[in-house]
Amino acid sequence: MKPQKDSTAYRVEPFTEDHTGHLSWGLLGNQILRCAGMHADARGFGFKDMIRSNHVWVLARLVIEMDRMPATGEDYAIETWVTRVYRQFTDRMFSIQAPGADKPFGHALSTWALIDLDTRRPRDLSTLPEGDISQYVCEEQVPIAEPSRIVVKAKEPVYTLTAGYSDLDVNGHVNSIRYLQMAMDLFSTTICGEGRRVRRAEMAYGGESYVGDQLQFFTDGIVDNQAAVVIKRNGESVTTKITLVFE
Amino acid sequence: MKPQKDSTAYRVEPFTEDHTGHLSWGLLGNQILRCAGMHADARGFGFKDMIRSNHVWVLARLVIEMDRMPATGEDYAIETWVTRVYRQFTDRMFSIQAPGADKPFGHALSTWALIDLDTRRPRDLSTLPEGDISQYVCEEQVPIAEPSRIVVKAKEPVYTLTAGYSDLDVNGHVNSIRYLQMAMDLFSTTICGEGRRVRRAEMAYGGESYVGDQLQFFTDGIVDNQAAVVIKRNGESVTTKITLVFE
Repeated sequence: MKPQKDSTAYRVEPFTEDHTGHLSWGLLGNQILRCAGMHADARGFGFKDMIRSNHVWVLARLVIEMDRMPATGEDYAIETWVTRVYRQFTDRMFSIQAPGADKPFGHALSTWALIDLDTRRPRDLSTLPEGDISQYVCEEQVPIAEPSRIVVKAKEPVYTLTAGYSDLDVNGHVNSIRYLQMAMDLFSTTICGEGRRVRRAEMAYGGESYVGDQLQFFTDGIVDNQAAVVIKRNGESVTTKITLVFE
Repeated sequence: MKPQKDSTAYRVEPFTEDHTGHLSWGLLGNQILRCAGMHADARGFGFKDMIRSNHVWVLARLVIEMDRMPATGEDYAIETWVTRVYRQFTDRMFSIQAPGADKPFGHALSTWALIDLDTRRPRDLSTLPEGDISQYVCEEQVPIAEPSRIVVKAKEPVYTLTAGYSDLDVNGHVNSIRYLQMAMDLFSTTICGEGRRVRRAEMAYGGESYVGDQLQFFTDGIVDNQAAVVIKRNGESVTTKITLVFE
């Protein structure tokens, strides 16, 4: 049997950093998703395995909390493992490790559902066709808080954009991490002008959005160092709710 | 003396592809810039070397032409070399190689100027303080056409966006390749809906743009398989002119 955890080594490369010369949230987020995919692939429950029975993994929520972001040229590693399988959900944790340092750069936690593409409904994960995930469960938790409920009162969007080609992932949906980038862009003045770093981001994913969709951004601004953002598509359904916690 | 050319190996990784499962233009463009930087660094005329005398390299134009884009899991390599040093400009070529195949995926050509940050003027490259670039010149050309002049007649923008945190590079400017992504997003219906691939992109860079800038996009649409796009900042100066050539 494979070990419960996998770790993948990375280095912050030029032309991948943000304006401060540190790993960007966009790249980190996509690498976290990639490590999740590789870990599941290596154990027979990845995308390729699931699509054979017409199922796909869908990200329900993702929390990333970074005490520090690695800088240009710095090494880091993303460790991931599954902590829990319960009814229609499975939880996966991540540690963003700093080789040789006392403590990691940060942590992430995520919750996933397996959607049956025929019925569009989530599948009970205790009866998976392709084998049992639970043999890989490692109950070790990460030392970050669970996500809070995300509520926005504002009735008018502060920004609207049209989802385009460069926003899409290989499934033709707007990339899950792209929503985080878009939400952070609303606070560019805070992040770039005032130099306030985002320390933690919470994403709760609803429906997908597609190329050409009008994405509308609702927020009440920064309250107590936090900003909640709700993203709606075409004036209707909520596609993603995000909380940004500033340092 | 170092060889004139360097080659860097890459593989198309999951969560880096576009909606068709091929290397995205955004990642390819940034990797091309990174290979340029590494090649110059290794020969003593890179960013770190130039900033010591308060000079920075500025990209004046970039043309990328791809006969085919590598797909998920496929290997490719970016080879780069300097072909010419003339007054205030230097030309650099790129071959995007396909290991084991008869011909490369594509090619790129670029022109750079060295700006003196004190005077904001380009420097004569025959009198560089940090040594002579011309010893590394390899006159081998790439088999793609020079860029054409980019003209747009439209007087009203077809789209406007606000440059945000996620658009910036480490210098605090909107990333050079992000303009290409933004221009391609104007033609998302063509690219995603009709499945027409962009084969060639030409970028002519003018002034920089910054976080919070209003970027306005002007285009006459697709004429003879080509679309010209002019991007202005804050209703004034032209920041980038782009031509997309569709297959």
